[in-house]
Amino acid sequence: MDVRRKAVVLLSGGLDSATVLAIAHAEGYEPYALSFRYGQRHDVELAAAARVAEALGARSHVVAEIDLRVFGGSALTADIDVPHHDSAEQIDAGEIPVTYVPARNTIFLSFALAWAETLDASDVFIGVNALDYSGYPDCRPEYITAYETMANLATKAGVEGRQRLTIHTPLIELTKAQTIQRGLELGVDYALTHSCYDPDEAGRACGTCDSCLLRERGFAELGLTDPARPAPAEVTP
Amino acid sequence: MDVRRKAVVLLSGGLDSATVLAIAHAEGYEPYALSFRYGQRHDVELAAAARVAEALGARSHVVAEIDLRVFGGSALTADIDVPHHDSAEQIDAGEIPVTYVPARNTIFLSFALAWAETLDASDVFIGVNALDYSGYPDCRPEYITAYETMANLATKAGVEGRQRLTIHTPLIELTKAQTIQRGLELGVDYALTHSCYDPDEAGRACGTCDSCLLRERGFAELGLTDPARPAPAEVTP
Repeated sequence: MDVRRKAVVLLSGGLDSATVLAIAHAEGYEPYALSFRYGQRHDVELAAAARVAEALGARSHVVAEIDLRVFGGSALTADIDVPHHDSAEQIDAGEIPVTYVPARNTIFLSFALAWAETLDASDVFIGVNALDYSGYPDCRPEYITAYETMANLATKAGVEGRQRLTIHTPLIELTKAQTIQRGLELGVDYALTHSCYDPDEAGRACGTCDSCLLRERGFAELGLTDPARPAPAEVTP
Repeated sequence: MDVRRKAVVLLSGGLDSATVLAIAHAEGYEPYALSFRYGQRHDVELAAAARVAEALGARSHVVAEIDLRVFGGSALTADIDVPHHDSAEQIDAGEIPVTYVPARNTIFLSFALAWAETLDASDVFIGVNALDYSGYPDCRPEYITAYETMANLATKAGVEGRQRLTIHTPLIELTKAQTIQRGLELGVDYALTHSCYDPDEAGRACGTCDSCLLRERGFAELGLTDPARPAPAEVTP
């Protein structure tokens, strides 16, 4: 008899959420992976999410359709250029970048809450990070705590006192390198993941957006090369 | 010079949210009306929302597409029968009904938050009601307060200390009759609104679902007939 408890895991297809899915599984949960088609410029991250969900033992993978483009306001969904830098050190962690999507984690967690309630699950996993977080307000621990409090007042189970919803943030205090280390210990194949904010038409990572640079630095700190971004083949004359 | 402050108003097209839109306008806000296509069984309430937005001076009306059917779990979106009763007194207010959509207000408020942030607005209006609320957990004052706290940690403006988001719930302590009275004072034409959970194919209200019965009782307490549900014409032999 399978006694695994169900958990909803937010899965973007990136490095962080893939690691979180592996952690949820390793902690004995039966993961239900949730991704979003939210008006991204590209679908390559959803393809990555599907690969990761399958490889890491998700019980089910749902892609919810929402359209954040009706509101505009972010370089990830609107007609604003994604910023590029030469190195991760040039990213100003004190400033909220144009790639911030208004209320994105709040919306994503709300869908996770809906699914958790339908599944009768009381655990949600999200790969937010307070260190390498690129300055997004909705990645901070105090935000997550407030969300949890709200969620427990929003649901049938909360009202009936049957169970408390817990939002798990296993990466919140980890550096990118520590996240990668943890994932590698759990057998995550990072070649399946996709993190770039601004891939080319073939879905290849740009290497110079905030997300690419933070990822590259994480692998570099471990003395590794990102398996999703092998060095370009040398041009033979 | 127009000095009205922008406010996002959640607008279902029903009696309550139409009244809320009128109140927001009367309080001096410039209302941005937000509706959802969320896998309802019928589109008649969105048609009502569009009529109401225009009639009550919304500056803009956006319909966000989300699909809650991927999760199932409610008579409003899944293949579960909407319950019918003979009178409002038969509705058990202590029980959460099958028409409850998991996390619906949490999702709706999250989209309102995203739009408010994009508009640089700090006010959101929602027509929740703690009395005639049909037993939904996410209509209670303590839930709204917790949501507001979370929202102020989720946004740029909150982080930067520029402004606090306020969630306005002008109907929360009103009976249905008091809501109707307030709306009539403000010139709301309730013939434009639609509240039924289970309309027929022509979009006519059933008259026997919880929403129809609470609405009918509200008008009856004021000695009025619901203008959206005129008495059927007498059959001439």
